[in-house]
Amino acid sequence: MTTPPHPPTPGTGLPPLAGGSHGPDALRPLVATVLDALAAGTAERQGRPLPAGGPDATAARVRAAATPVLPGEGAGAGEALTTLVQALAAGAADPAHPLCAAHLHTPPLALAVAADLAASALNQSLDSWDQAPAAAELEALVTHALALEVYPGTPPDATPDAVVTTGGTESNQLALLLARERHAPAGGRLQVVTGANTHHSLTRAAWLLGLPEPVTVPAPRGTLDPAALDDALSTLRGPVLVAATAGTTDTGAIDPLPAIADLCERHGAELHVDAAYGGPLLFSDRRAPLLDGLDRAQSVTLDLHKLGWQPVAAGLLAVPGTEMLAPLAHTADYLNADDDTDAGLPDLLGRSLRTTRRPDIIKIAVTLRALGRSGLGTLVDHLCDTAEELAEAIDKHPRLELHEHPTLTTVLFRPTGASDTTVATIRRTLLTEGTAVLGRARADGRLWLKTTLLNPHTTPDDLAALLTRVETLADTLVEGSTPR
Amino acid sequence: MTTPPHPPTPGTGLPPLAGGSHGPDALRPLVATVLDALAAGTAERQGRPLPAGGPDATAARVRAAATPVLPGEGAGAGEALTTLVQALAAGAADPAHPLCAAHLHTPPLALAVAADLAASALNQSLDSWDQAPAAAELEALVTHALALEVYPGTPPDATPDAVVTTGGTESNQLALLLARERHAPAGGRLQVVTGANTHHSLTRAAWLLGLPEPVTVPAPRGTLDPAALDDALSTLRGPVLVAATAGTTDTGAIDPLPAIADLCERHGAELHVDAAYGGPLLFSDRRAPLLDGLDRAQSVTLDLHKLGWQPVAAGLLAVPGTEMLAPLAHTADYLNADDDTDAGLPDLLGRSLRTTRRPDIIKIAVTLRALGRSGLGTLVDHLCDTAEELAEAIDKHPRLELHEHPTLTTVLFRPTGASDTTVATIRRTLLTEGTAVLGRARADGRLWLKTTLLNPHTTPDDLAALLTRVETLADTLVEGSTPR
Repeated sequence: MTTPPHPPTPGTGLPPLAGGSHGPDALRPLVATVLDALAAGTAERQGRPLPAGGPDATAARVRAAATPVLPGEGAGAGEALTTLVQALAAGAADPAHPLCAAHLHTPPLALAVAADLAASALNQSLDSWDQAPAAAELEALVTHALALEVYPGTPPDATPDAVVTTGGTESNQLALLLARERHAPAGGRLQVVTGANTHHSLTRAAWLLGLPEPVTVPAPRGTLDPAALDDALSTLRGPVLVAATAGTTDTGAIDPLPAIADLCERHGAELHVDAAYGGPLLFSDRRAPLLDGLDRAQSVTLDLHKLGWQPVAAGLLAVPGTEMLAPLAHTADYLNADDDTDAGLPDLLGRSLRTTRRPDIIKIAVTLRALGRSGLGTLVDHLCDTAEELAEAIDKHPRLELHEHPTLTTVLFRPTGASDTTVATIRRTLLTEGTAVLGRARADGRLWLKTTLLNPHTTPDDLAALLTRVETLADTLVEGSTPR
Repeated sequence: MTTPPHPPTPGTGLPPLAGGSHGPDALRPLVATVLDALAAGTAERQGRPLPAGGPDATAARVRAAATPVLPGEGAGAGEALTTLVQALAAGAADPAHPLCAAHLHTPPLALAVAADLAASALNQSLDSWDQAPAAAELEALVTHALALEVYPGTPPDATPDAVVTTGGTESNQLALLLARERHAPAGGRLQVVTGANTHHSLTRAAWLLGLPEPVTVPAPRGTLDPAALDDALSTLRGPVLVAATAGTTDTGAIDPLPAIADLCERHGAELHVDAAYGGPLLFSDRRAPLLDGLDRAQSVTLDLHKLGWQPVAAGLLAVPGTEMLAPLAHTADYLNADDDTDAGLPDLLGRSLRTTRRPDIIKIAVTLRALGRSGLGTLVDHLCDTAEELAEAIDKHPRLELHEHPTLTTVLFRPTGASDTTVATIRRTLLTEGTAVLGRARADGRLWLKTTLLNPHTTPDDLAALLTRVETLADTLVEGSTPR
């Protein structure tokens, strides 16, 4: 492939900018170079979901392409884009491949990625109005609309709201921070209560925020046990925040939200729900009832870079009223001086803990508008149905064991009679071959292969081929060949 | 403008994905739509750096375009991209416009924005190797190379390293967290010491992390006063972290780093340097000496979405040795189980507080390679020189007052004899007219107009026109017309 020329801006010798009236024309050839390099790198992967050869082979390919990282003299835009983007595509775990199905690692929609280009090109920053006049308004509209999905029964005088985050982890962190600050004036020290099935980010957030280590309630069947929660809440004094989950990372299970909300009410505890994975069920008429009780939470984590097909980052934290975001209020004279705010310049600084902040809302807004509620709901239902079909195929399979039928799109399975070591080795062998990306999860005391379906284009045939490959590999490993 | 068709993937009725072998072809027409919409929106702005009419007019334009946010039936990719991207471009504060010069709000290079498209399309996630095989290696290479710029004199057995952040704010937060944890085992409670000139994010980070409010040392001339720091350090007991600044937000001043490092050594305090703005002086042979002493810090904040021409986000925190990042170590069985790590799968989870994480390193890597050290240094020098020329023009101007000659690219000025209210009103009037985006800063007890030059294409003629506009406006306002 030849590298097309990318000359500096005529007459200046300076590299062209993405913005201004010349920006789109400067971007056209560069974007074409990127798309060509993506195609070439993907072809180099030869139909695999990730590169063959494991970490060492991939690292060697990248090092050969990418060094020297900072040459004395520049290689030029065309060479740099071609070389590095092709190497990255060749060495990518491609979530658009049907057999890349380990994690909550979504294949983004092309339309969302195209919209994200506008975010990069415009480079608005949501820490002050004069860096993002239109983007600030769009964010306000879209966050309000999404918060209304979570809190639809809100009285007219309340204003459900949401802030945009880098993902579920930051959303959970903010939820704990807001709870900490709600009780700080009274000198209360917040105790977080999680389930054994709760995302690790909640424990990490408590550490970050200087809170006591969370009390962990058992989740023997993959969901938080209400009786055990009742016991735990009975022993705790002082302010408590219970963190429940709508869509666990390991199995996609949804905690019994109404029962948990009842217990919180009875014990005077607050409730946060991490719906990073399950939140988009709200777009499906058939499945929205699975989230009953969600609107009783003081805060809800959403994350559209999972079951929302957005490129990272697309996290949100929804609250039933804007006033609950007050602890984030912050002043810096150069960004939101009182006289500027009094004169009508919107104050954006209290919408995040970040200062400079990219409008990740653009791609979300484009996706909501392009697909509509029905389009999003159809994708959610389609994937949940595909996961159920996979579960049925496993259940019928004579040599595979199904963990349980899925609530969302996660299906755990294992070769019948295999040891945990064999299960882990199957996963690593598939990764090293580059033939499939499966996850792992521990449930009922055993290790399982985890399939997380987020790719709407994945067909039953793709999944049948996956099961066959796992079966074959299990045979090979039991026979003692080259485990890794 | 007509909307080109963007049909669903043939035969499936499903919207196409950005990845896989069909991804680049699916992206081509969508990206063309985005570039056309960017051009149309920019044209709608009629040569202004931001939309005329102020917040209400912009909000009305966006609301008209963007509602309903979540229609029942989708409008399709073409319509959604065209409508929303055009509205955002029309209502953007365009950092590529020479008169958009308020904040550390950079006009990104076209090549960096094109590279960022690859990050969105590949959608790798840097929380586990099997979601980012090549991107993880690239990040390791580039962060090490950049850390070597900060810590060049490191002994061969040390490994300077850096983690990637959402910007200077998160970098500063991580710096405080790492310092907190260095002293936590001994039960020490960290006291942060800042200057009056330090970025607001440090105070906010201390609050977030549950640390005592920082002790603030005076910075009467815009830089931290070593004598006052000496006094403060003499009174403090227990672990102390001094946060110095290389490039303040208000004036671009650089604290006397060698003197501060000496004081820290003498008092047994640790040093963090926020070089979010000034860090790229390292690329300039002429100006790198301004950062002497930087390598004596325990951690250094860098941010290439300022004087590095990256789209947001491109933050880094550099440390002299990888081992200093140990407090970020974190385990989640599904991402970095012990047996996987033992088998050679890289453990990425301790490189960030985020879990899912976009490879912002791609655009940085492409920029370093495309421009090289000489290209980056030339841009830095060019902008510093342009700022000095602006300062000289102001200094010679009979009716404008210069605050001081710039160290970096920030120039403060005001109409001679104007009140603070007039200065603030000039700024807001320019914003409402849509004719210029200037910032504000308080120095020597007075309010100044702030010009932060980050656009290498800005010419002396552009800046002369800006000064003329400010002068005219000052006259108008003194005559009493329509202040805002």
